[in-house]
Amino acid sequence: MENAMPDTTTYAPSERTVPTRSRERASYNRDLVHAILDEGYVCHLGFVRDGAPVVLPTLYGRVGDRLYVHGSTGSRPLRMAGQSDPGLAVCLTVTHVDGLVLARSAFHHSINYRSVVVHGIAHEVVDEEERRTALDALVDHVVPGRSSDSRPANAKELAATAVIRLDLEEVSAKVRTGGPNDEPEDASLPHWTGVVPLTRGYGAPVPAADLDPAVALPDYLTTL
Amino acid sequence: MENAMPDTTTYAPSERTVPTRSRERASYNRDLVHAILDEGYVCHLGFVRDGAPVVLPTLYGRVGDRLYVHGSTGSRPLRMAGQSDPGLAVCLTVTHVDGLVLARSAFHHSINYRSVVVHGIAHEVVDEEERRTALDALVDHVVPGRSSDSRPANAKELAATAVIRLDLEEVSAKVRTGGPNDEPEDASLPHWTGVVPLTRGYGAPVPAADLDPAVALPDYLTTL
Repeated sequence: MENAMPDTTTYAPSERTVPTRSRERASYNRDLVHAILDEGYVCHLGFVRDGAPVVLPTLYGRVGDRLYVHGSTGSRPLRMAGQSDPGLAVCLTVTHVDGLVLARSAFHHSINYRSVVVHGIAHEVVDEEERRTALDALVDHVVPGRSSDSRPANAKELAATAVIRLDLEEVSAKVRTGGPNDEPEDASLPHWTGVVPLTRGYGAPVPAADLDPAVALPDYLTTL
Repeated sequence: MENAMPDTTTYAPSERTVPTRSRERASYNRDLVHAILDEGYVCHLGFVRDGAPVVLPTLYGRVGDRLYVHGSTGSRPLRMAGQSDPGLAVCLTVTHVDGLVLARSAFHHSINYRSVVVHGIAHEVVDEEERRTALDALVDHVVPGRSSDSRPANAKELAATAVIRLDLEEVSAKVRTGGPNDEPEDASLPHWTGVVPLTRGYGAPVPAADLDPAVALPDYLTTL
């Protein structure tokens, strides 16, 4: 994988990030990986506890080639990342489901999706400036612009919050698009075939019961 | 956890399914667990490979207290489940994100969500009748009614497909609903606060390029 000039447009494939099948769906393109990560904000974080896998949904933020996850200092993976040396082995996966692919044959039914899988060692972030940057990134990843329109964490809240970092190094995207791939001999079967697109959106914001009516809905929520 | 009469309305909590924090969000109610599972069809399946966690998105189906996952006989987790004795330790997680919770303080920002986490040992299904039931359930879980309106798998396709089963025994749901929980002393801060609901839906079905125009859109797609 070594080149005279490092390739900054793609991540280097590894044994773990090259799929055993559907290899044509895999990509190591940095822009694609970032675009998929930036469209979501909930990941599924996997780690090993007492020899068994654990998968938990959690928020994440991205700053360049670093992903951040946060939580209570009492939560299991964050505690484990802080106590382990050199850190906690994790797999962080983000998936967007874009469409239901209905083939004429049950076998060729599929899903259009875009996913990113990151393998690596998560480390606890202890530098205070990086912790603040990470926490802002986590808030802004969900609602861009929100971190500067909320009260920053105080010392007590910062002390209760653990932040872990996972570098984007061993990472791949996987994408399926397009219609069904039926067998030619099934073409005349009488079943409807095609794709049902999935849509995602935002409903009208619901103000908190105690919100002062003088506080207007901010622009960054009208353009979500 | 033992009772004279077994409680069939809830799953028994275990050390792994009792969260270390936000315990009030955890539930072991069987109907709630099933409802969350039935609303989705993509899970994140975690397993351990060479000591490290792997988390992959995949479809699932439910038949009573059994979950099924399928894939190519060449895919890693399915191969590992078939080769391992007594099976493959997995964690299967399903998450629905319902709303963005914007508090006045960055610290109290949150997400409204419903998730189910299942721990257990996945076994390869070898009984042919159970395999067919599982494959129908997988298709019908995504589009109810579709399995009977598509060509069933033939012998070659069945031979290329592995099915694994995970029993719902060690399972919990976690649910967050409602508005922000700001600190009382933050009530007068000038930041908008409330919940932005998230919406999910279906776009207009897109027929395959080679679909005979005489084949009408089936009712089960108009009522998705």
